[in-house]
Formats: sequence, structure tokens, C-alpha cells
Amino acid sequence: MYRIGLIGVGHIGAVHARNIARHPELTLAASYSRSPQRREAFAAEFGGRAARDLADVFEAPDVDAVMIASSTDSHSALLRQAARSGKPVFCEKPIDLSLDEARRAVTVARDCGARIMMGFNRRYEESHAAVRDQVASGGLGRLQIVQLTSRGPSRLATVEYLRSSGGFFRDKGVHFFDLARFITGDEVEEVSAMGAALVHQDVRDLGDFDTAIVSLRMRGGALCQIDNSRTASYGYDERIEAFGSQGWVESCRQPAAAVRRAVGAELASAPFPQNIYERIGGSYYRTIEAFADFLADAGASVPTIEDGFAAQCIAEAAVWSAREGRSVKIHELDAR
Amino acid sequence: MYRIGLIGVGHIGAVHARNIARHPELTLAASYSRSPQRREAFAAEFGGRAARDLADVFEAPDVDAVMIASSTDSHSALLRQAARSGKPVFCEKPIDLSLDEARRAVTVARDCGARIMMGFNRRYEESHAAVRDQVASGGLGRLQIVQLTSRGPSRLATVEYLRSSGGFFRDKGVHFFDLARFITGDEVEEVSAMGAALVHQDVRDLGDFDTAIVSLRMRGGALCQIDNSRTASYGYDERIEAFGSQGWVESCRQPAAAVRRAVGAELASAPFPQNIYERIGGSYYRTIEAFADFLADAGASVPTIEDGFAAQCIAEAAVWSAREGRSVKIHELDAR
Amino acid sequence: MYRIGLIGVGHIGAVHARNIARHPELTLAASYSRSPQRREAFAAEFGGRAARDLADVFEAPDVDAVMIASSTDSHSALLRQAARSGKPVFCEKPIDLSLDEARRAVTVARDCGARIMMGFNRRYEESHAAVRDQVASGGLGRLQIVQLTSRGPSRLATVEYLRSSGGFFRDKGVHFFDLARFITGDEVEEVSAMGAALVHQDVRDLGDFDTAIVSLRMRGGALCQIDNSRTASYGYDERIEAFGSQGWVESCRQPAAAVRRAVGAELASAPFPQNIYERIGGSYYRTIEAFADFLADAGASVPTIEDGFAAQCIAEAAVWSAREGRSVKIHELDAR
Amino acid sequence: MYRIGLIGVGHIGAVHARNIARHPELTLAASYSRSPQRREAFAAEFGGRAARDLADVFEAPDVDAVMIASSTDSHSALLRQAARSGKPVFCEKPIDLSLDEARRAVTVARDCGARIMMGFNRRYEESHAAVRDQVASGGLGRLQIVQLTSRGPSRLATVEYLRSSGGFFRDKGVHFFDLARFITGDEVEEVSAMGAALVHQDVRDLGDFDTAIVSLRMRGGALCQIDNSRTASYGYDERIEAFGSQGWVESCRQPAAAVRRAVGAELASAPFPQNIYERIGGSYYRTIEAFADFLADAGASVPTIEDGFAAQCIAEAAVWSAREGRSVKIHELDAR
Repeated sequence: MYRIGLIGVGHIGAVHARNIARHPELTLAASYSRSPQRREAFAAEFGGRAARDLADVFEAPDVDAVMIASSTDSHSALLRQAARSGKPVFCEKPIDLSLDEARRAVTVARDCGARIMMGFNRRYEESHAAVRDQVASGGLGRLQIVQLTSRGPSRLATVEYLRSSGGFFRDKGVHFFDLARFITGDEVEEVSAMGAALVHQDVRDLGDFDTAIVSLRMRGGALCQIDNSRTASYGYDERIEAFGSQGWVESCRQPAAAVRRAVGAELASAPFPQNIYERIGGSYYRTIEAFADFLADAGASVPTIEDGFAAQCIAEAAVWSAREGRSVKIHELDAR
Repeated sequence: MYRIGLIGVGHIGAVHARNIARHPELTLAASYSRSPQRREAFAAEFGGRAARDLADVFEAPDVDAVMIASSTDSHSALLRQAARSGKPVFCEKPIDLSLDEARRAVTVARDCGARIMMGFNRRYEESHAAVRDQVASGGLGRLQIVQLTSRGPSRLATVEYLRSSGGFFRDKGVHFFDLARFITGDEVEEVSAMGAALVHQDVRDLGDFDTAIVSLRMRGGALCQIDNSRTASYGYDERIEAFGSQGWVESCRQPAAAVRRAVGAELASAPFPQNIYERIGGSYYRTIEAFADFLADAGASVPTIEDGFAAQCIAEAAVWSAREGRSVKIHELDAR
Repeated sequence: MYRIGLIGVGHIGAVHARNIARHPELTLAASYSRSPQRREAFAAEFGGRAARDLADVFEAPDVDAVMIASSTDSHSALLRQAARSGKPVFCEKPIDLSLDEARRAVTVARDCGARIMMGFNRRYEESHAAVRDQVASGGLGRLQIVQLTSRGPSRLATVEYLRSSGGFFRDKGVHFFDLARFITGDEVEEVSAMGAALVHQDVRDLGDFDTAIVSLRMRGGALCQIDNSRTASYGYDERIEAFGSQGWVESCRQPAAAVRRAVGAELASAPFPQNIYERIGGSYYRTIEAFADFLADAGASVPTIEDGFAAQCIAEAAVWSAREGRSVKIHELDAR
Repeated sequence: MYRIGLIGVGHIGAVHARNIARHPELTLAASYSRSPQRREAFAAEFGGRAARDLADVFEAPDVDAVMIASSTDSHSALLRQAARSGKPVFCEKPIDLSLDEARRAVTVARDCGARIMMGFNRRYEESHAAVRDQVASGGLGRLQIVQLTSRGPSRLATVEYLRSSGGFFRDKGVHFFDLARFITGDEVEEVSAMGAALVHQDVRDLGDFDTAIVSLRMRGGALCQIDNSRTASYGYDERIEAFGSQGWVESCRQPAAAVRRAVGAELASAPFPQNIYERIGGSYYRTIEAFADFLADAGASVPTIEDGFAAQCIAEAAVWSAREGRSVKIHELDAR
């Protein structure tokens, strides 16, 4: 049984706490929030104790591993502290909004030999993983095109959140930049991005995007298309497909229930999933399972802090590309 | 919080115990099996105490409601005992293999004013319930045909089980006889059944069927087709469709995952569900939810002991029809 | 090039004339109707000459083969005349409404060594044929259940047509009785049928059915379910499925076009086919192709007059079963 | 009846000749090829006379309209000649490989008041047109993203063809650049393209692409993604989807036949279409129908020579973008 110390008691913290409770090998030992009230309430609801301060998590003898689910601006400092604590760490993406800060966290983690798993839960969505397995098996031959679609049913994010999120590519795009690397098993060489604020005036006022498309060229030659929207009127829509010289594979969009209905000539299916949890909810639990496996076996393959950094580099290149109206090569980031 | 006393600690008892544990308003107070070893082991695994005897369930002050999940031949006696105890009861189908015994249990239950819910879990399968709702709403107009398909991926049942199960129609068919009533909101008038033992030699030796088809005529005129198989080589396959003068609705068969794959010109989907829990597993939990609602509100609509008796009458008529090679009217059962 | 003499210039005659025009090896030489006006108009529209009388078809040196597409009550007499003419014949189903008359036609045809193809076009529907091929290949193992669904979008038939059609089982059912034999490669042993007039008052007044279900037991043990409706509010719906101890295959229902649409959470497909030609229209042309092949090669496999007779026997047994409320064995027909 | 003069007797000429023969209002009057042998053979196969020279088409009193289906390098000269002849014209895309030549043809056509329909057949693919209709109806609200996928099952093109085709974007891409304008009802503002030669060495040697992705920004703000491949191992795969602030619509990929099959747990569909005609073959006939309508009514809406020019401008911008690694604005083409 591994005892988890959780930092951050917001929405995603609660998702993780519920999955820890379901997992036979994990238990929630302590939860920390800067707000004493919130951490007490959280401990009352999900079990374990409320930690007095960060040391009461990182140095506590009853905490075997730490999960960082706090706000993005605290991640890199916590990652460094975690690295030094010697405890294994699970950290929500991204590492930091500043690429320099993120790089610093990677360096410290490497120097400390820290065991860090980044929370890229979509790698654990079963239908997405099936696409990756098919590519990795060589069954598609020479990879030609990968497409990644993800569109949310409504803008969950508040203006406050958006302002501190680093923008569309760093906040939402980063999941798919990671998936592009994960699925192709290759590194991105070149990024071209276009964004638009088509639906939300307040997003437009922030200079951010609610809709974006990205083209990637991988080192091995494959091309990727990503399309993302913060707002899809018709539901939560996520799909991936890949094809190559010998085959094709798709993680499909699909109605949320196996029901069809005709009235007169009108033929209707059950609707698409209406929120992210209906579509990829299972991936959050499987992510926690993977963390448990990683705790049991340091050699288990999980998304690393280097993966986190690589995804952020692509996001950074996308921001740059959209701003300058040109393709950006990943190696240009070093020279910035 | 309702405290449950569970009688029967076999396969289905464990399914219920797990769902009780998931439900926020239910807790497992006591478990009973004739075997002291098995009840102790069960209590150790699922919580609560091991009941010493039936009185330790039916008369225990720490038991609010009783679930009967023991072998079929004990159901009717336990139902009568439960009825007299005054505690609300959940009982697995069928009431009894003998229609006379079943009728006696119904009478006792009625006389005692017992609150009994029969475990017809398929009523709680969401896609099936959507078919029923569509019919009940009148959206299909005058109902014409209902089809119910259920085929299991392999013969889970042992010869011992089969011998005591009352045969295919009483054991498996009964679920779909109940669904036919539930979905049409109507009573069966006439039954015509054909059965065959096509795959399993030991089933044939028992004079039982592994494959069967049944035609029903409802009082309101609608026709139903049921097809059942104990063994479907390709997976667990369950679907329902209904149509009438104004529309059509289907609870569809569907691959177990949203993945498609092409190799050369071969196009493959993810396989069909490979066991009953992949297809209708969720219905077991929703059945337990319905029982909790029934405990909170005696007026909540659940499958009653009269529903259980009606389904058994249809099963009896099917047995009779298959044996005699003719349609059997339900009212003939009274005259038998 | 084979020159065709067509008898009967109604709806189905026109369908065949159009397909003859499309076929590179066939040409319409002569058309006959009792009405001089109608045969002249038909010849003007579809080419070839208007035949003066039946002899002008059966004995004409410019006619290589005869197609009988006249009303049902003329079929058996025309078949006998055709058999004696020595010309190869294509005949629409059924042979005759009277089983005795049909038997007489079969005997004459056999005595004359006539080359007759019955117009069971559904054997030539590609998706249905794929089911048959899968069964015939042995790929399903021991066959367990075959289901045949066919529901028409509206009652095309007039009361006059219905009155002379021989009733639902002889008129519409016969196609699926033929398919049951074709797909299983086996003979029917036992028939159980239920019919109802649920939608059309005039059908009820005739004592006929607009909705019916039939169960068949094949000699080899497989069970079949057929469901038919003259009126399906939601479109033309035809599907077949079969499964056995090693596999499953389906000729699926499917929207008529590859379009999906969501408005808000409502998800709609293109509608089902809205008439028979949208669903199985292609089978009529392929039937004519098969007739051309049969003209070129007397050994080509086509539905024979014996197949026509076998299907009618099943229809007869279905009529009998529905009337008497019992299973009818095919061999009982001999003893009638 | 309109009498057609056809210039060009290659693959696409034969497709059109066959569709002219099917159309009740069109007839093939004359065919021209520079090769006397080929034009004689074509006339013998498809009817009409072999034209002696171009004047024998453009000035012939028995020719009501001209179809240009010759090799691309002859289109613009023929278009100018056709414009001056006063006869209505159907012309295969593109106008010319040189944008200057194309612009000259547009100017001449405009000055002559020529009636020209460009052969953008995909506008007439029914499922694609359904997407356009949904957008045009306003049913999607504010348009956000349009995706256009088209991948051919094998490289039909020879090296000779590729050398004279103007490259991937001008030859294949141009269809989808036209569709992007057609579906959005909007003009392209900005183009970003990436291409790769991943499968064919000879394509790579030519400096051309076999796989490409393109991002478009429309003037109204919507974003488009196009992905094209000359070679898709798994079949001919073409699909379109669009979504906006109020809805979503898709012209789906779909198996070529309505058959599914399971062997053990393997579940297979009929394969995807294996060639372009299986997927969009019908659109060629409907294009010819539209041309017949245009001959009858000069006001009928068809793809114009201006549409042809607009699509070529986007292709040109894509070539430029792929070469220079940056977004290209359409207005930059004027300044070139």
C-alpha cells in the first residue's frame, strides 16, 4: 500500500483523490492547500489528514509519494522541492508557463535522480493507446499522417483561469503535442499554427484563441494535424487517426450510448458525450494505476519530466508560429 | 444508510456485495451461507458480520433489508420467511422452479403486504430502458414488433447448474419474458417456442436446449421475437429493437471499444463485448441503486413479485409449447 | 446477344425492361400484354415490337428467351406453355397461388426438361449473398440461428392486389422462405407463424396480416426467425444475420447516405432507405445478369422452379400454422 | 437534346462519354483527339462522329456545347477558342498550370461573355453537398473548423503524368481548395502547407509530394484543414466535416458494403471503397447532369472559370508556402 500526499485540492485534486480511493494499492495520507479551511474540508471528505505545510508532505514519514495538483504557477517550484525530497512524484502538466523555469526544473530533477511521472492522462485513454500500439507495432508501415481532434463542449474555463493559463496552446494544446510524440514515437521538427477567437468575445479580448489548428512535421517525416476548440456546441469530441504505407487505425468518436431511434424518416443516435469525463473519464483512473505501477517498479514506462518539457517546447513553437505567421523549427527555441 | 443482510455468497452474491460497497446509502451488515467457512470468508472480504443462521438475518435489529441471492430452490421459502419478517426484500429471479410453489410465495407476500423487489437487472440496462421509455412515451405509435436477442459468449453453466436450473426457458429466457412485458407495457397472451441443442452434447443429454427462439403475441396485438443462445462464439451479444406505426428504436449491439483498424483492405472494429459484464455490467449497479430508492420510498416502481410470477408463467408456457409443438395461451396455465 | 420476349408490362415488367436495356448481352425483342394499347405503349417506350399474342412470343424466331412478369394467376399456365416451347424462361414468383397448380407446373417443366429461372432477386442482393457465402464456406461452423427482417416503408399494395395476392405469407413471405433455404443451404422441416393486422383496417377486413413473425426449424437443426411488415413507418428496412458455433455474419441495415449531423446534443444520421429500390434496387439488375449467364450456360446455378415450389410449400405451412395455432411440419403438406 | 462535342478521349473523356450516354437530354455528337486512330476508335465505341480538327468541333452546326477533357497544358488555349466560338463549355480543372495563362483565359472568357462550367465534380458528391447545404443554411452557426480528407488507394499517376501535372497541390489539392470555398461560402485569406514524399521514391526524385497537409484561414475567420495523400494503403478515403457555434456535420467515410462478420472475437466490416469510383463515382454523373441543366438554363449555378482561378490561386499559395516555410496570404499573389 502506497500512502499519497496530495498538494492541491481543486477540481483535479478531487478527481485524483476519488481514484486513489478506488485503487487497492493506494491510500490518501495527507492533503495540502494554502487555505487551512479547504484542506480540512478536503481531508474530511476524502480521508487522510490535512497537512500543516509543504514540509508536512515532503518530509512526512507517512507519505510514500507526492502528487502535485496545484495551480500551474506553483508546479516548477514544487517539482524542485519534490526532487530534493527523494520521494517519487506525480505532477500535473505543464511544468511551468516559462520555458526557462521548466528547463530549470528538468535540470534539478535530473541532478537529483528524481522519479517523476507527468500527468498526461490521455496516454492512458484506451482507444488512444490502441492507436499508439498499432503504430509502435509497425503495423502501419511508414507513417504518413496522424490527426488529433479534441473539442470541448463548452468553455469551462473562467477568464481568471484563462489569464493565468499561458494561452490555448500551452494549456490545452500541450496534451496533444504530447500525444503526437507518444503516438508517433518520434520528435517534432517543425510547427505551424493558426488560431482564432471565433466564439468568445472575452477570449478575443485577452488576445487568446478558442479555436486552433496546428501542423507538425516529425523528424521521421510523418505529418500531424491537430485541431482544438474550447467550445464545441455538439459535445465533447475527441478522436485520433493515423495511417501509413501499410494500414490505418482510428480512435473513433462515437455516440455516448448504443441507442438509435427513428421518427418518420429522421434517424437519430444517442448524442455524443456531453463532457470530458463521459469520453475519457476512464483515463484518469488508468493514469493513477500507472502511477501505482511506477511506485512498485521504478523501471515502468511513464511520461517523464523530459516528456513534459518536450510538449511545452512544441507549445512554445506553436505560440511563436501563430504570432509570426511562419513555420517554427523546434531547434530555433534553443537559440531564442 | 440502509444495512443489508445478504443470503447467498456465490457469484451473484459477490456482484451485489461489491455494488453495495459502491453505493453511498447502503452498507453490508451481515452475510449468510449454510457453510460457516464460506460465510466467514465472505464477511472477511466484503465487510459486515457472518450471520449465524437465517434468524440472525431476518430478525436482526442491525439489518434493515434482506437480499436473497441463494440457489433457486431456496428462493420461495426464503421469500415467505422474508415476507413474514416485515423487512423489505430483494430477490434474485426466479421465485421457484415450480409454478405452484411460486404462486404460494406470491400469495403469502400479498397477504403479508411484503415489500419485494425482484432482481430483473436488465430493466436497468440504460440502452434497454431507453427502448422502453420510447415505447411508453407513445413515440412509436401502435406497437408492431419487438425483438429481443441475447446470446452468451460461452456456456458458463456447469452440468450440475443446468440440471437444477429448470431448463433454458426458466433459467435464461425468463429475463427476456420479463423484458417483453416491461418494454411493451403489456401482457403476453400466446407463446410459441422452439429449442435445440446444437453445440453442447451434455445439454442435449439433459434434454435441454442451448439455442432457442420464441414468438409471443401480446394482448394489445404486438408480436415479439426472442432469440437466446447459451453459446455465441463471437461474444456477448444482446440487443433489442421495437417498431410501431410511428417510429423505431434500438438498443444496439456495438463493439466494446471505439477503435477501428485497416490492414490492406481488411477493416476491423474492436470486438464485441466478450462477457456479460462488458455489455450489461452497469445494470447490476443500477439495480442496486433502484433497491436503495425503493428502501427510501416504498412507492418507487420496481419489478414486483407479481412481475416475477408473470415472467415464470411465460417460461412455463414456452416449455410446454416447445414440448407439444403448438402455441400455448397463458390462460391455459390456470387450467392445467 | 439474347433477344428477350417479355410477358407482362406492369411495374415489375418495366423494371426488367430497363435492366435488359442496361445489359450488354440482352435486348428486348417483344413485349406482350392482353391490352393492345398497353403493349404498344410499352414497346414505344422500351424498344422491340409489341407481340400480337402469346404465340408471337413463344413461337417467334426472333425471341431467344421468355420472361414472365404478368399477374400471379397467369404464371402456371404460362410456365407450362413456356416449358413446351423449349425456350428458356425467367418467371416471377410465385408459381401459382394454388399448391396443386404449382405442383402441376413443376411436373410439366420436369417432363419437358424446361430451363426455368425463378425471379428470387434477393438472392442477388450483394450483402445478403455475402451472408450466404459465409455460411456456405463453413466459416460459421454449426449453424445456430438465422434472422431475416424485411419491412416495407408503406403499403404499396392496393386492396385489389391484396385480394388476389394469396395473402401475406404467399406474397411477401415467400421471398424470405426462399432466402432461408438459400442461406442455410438446408430444407425447412417445421414452421410456426403468427400474423396480425395492426395498422391497416382494410387488411384486417380481408382477414390478412400487415405484420407477421415466423419461426422455422431446418432439417439440420438450425432455427430461423423471420419478421415481415407491409408497413414500417421509418423506411425500407431489410437485414439478415446468421451465427453458428464459429462465427457471425450480418447484412446490416444502414443509413441511405454517409452523412451525420449534430444540432446541440441531437445527433442524426441520414435516414434509412425510404423505398425498396434504395435498399435492394441493385439486386434486380444482378438478377437479370444471372439470367443472361444462365442463357449462356445452362449449368449456371439459378433459383429453379423446384426452389419456387419449396418456398411456396413453406408459405402454405405458414398460412396453416397461423390459422391453427400450432407448428406445421412440411411433410404434412403431402398428406393434406 | 443537347449535342456534345468532346475534346480529349483519355480516361476522363471516356467517363464523361459514358455519362452522356446515360443522360436523357445529352448525346455525344463528335469526339476529337490529335490522334486520328484514337478519335476513330473512341467514336466507334461511344457513338457520334470523329471530328477532323478543332474547327470541326467548335464551328460544327451539329455541336451545341463543348467539353474539354484533354491534357492540362491544352486547357487555356481551348478555353479561349471555346469562349470565342460562343458555344457553352465544360472544362476539366485546372485552367492552366501557369497562373498568368489562367488569368488570361479568365479575361478572354469574361470579355466574350462565355458560358463556362469547370469540372469540379466533388461539389456534386451528395454527401459532400449535404455538408455545404448545412453550412449554407446557417445551421452550424458561426463556422469554426472545416476538415477535408482525401486519400487515394494507390498512385494511379505515372511519372510522366506527375511531371506535367504541376505538382501535388495544383493537381490533386485544387479539388479541395475548391471545396473549401464551396463549403464555407467564403474566400481563403491565408495558406500554410507542408508536403512530404514518404512512400514513392520517384515522387521524391521529382521534388514532388505524395502526402501533404494544408491549413487555411478564411476571410470570415473559419479555419480549414486539408489532408491529402496520393497513396493510402487501405482504400479510397474521402471525408469532410464542419462544425460551428451551433452544430456539426460530416460526410463520413464508410465501408463499401453493409456487411459485418465476426470470427472468434475478430469483428470485421466490409472494406473501405477500394477506388475513387466506389466512393465518389456518382458525382461524375451528377456533374454531367448539372452541365445539362446549365445548357438549359444559363442562370443555373455551376462552378465558374472564376472559381477555377480562385482554386488555382490557393494551390499556388500552397506551393509557395511549402517551399518557403511560412503562411502565404492570397493577396500576395497579386504582388508577385
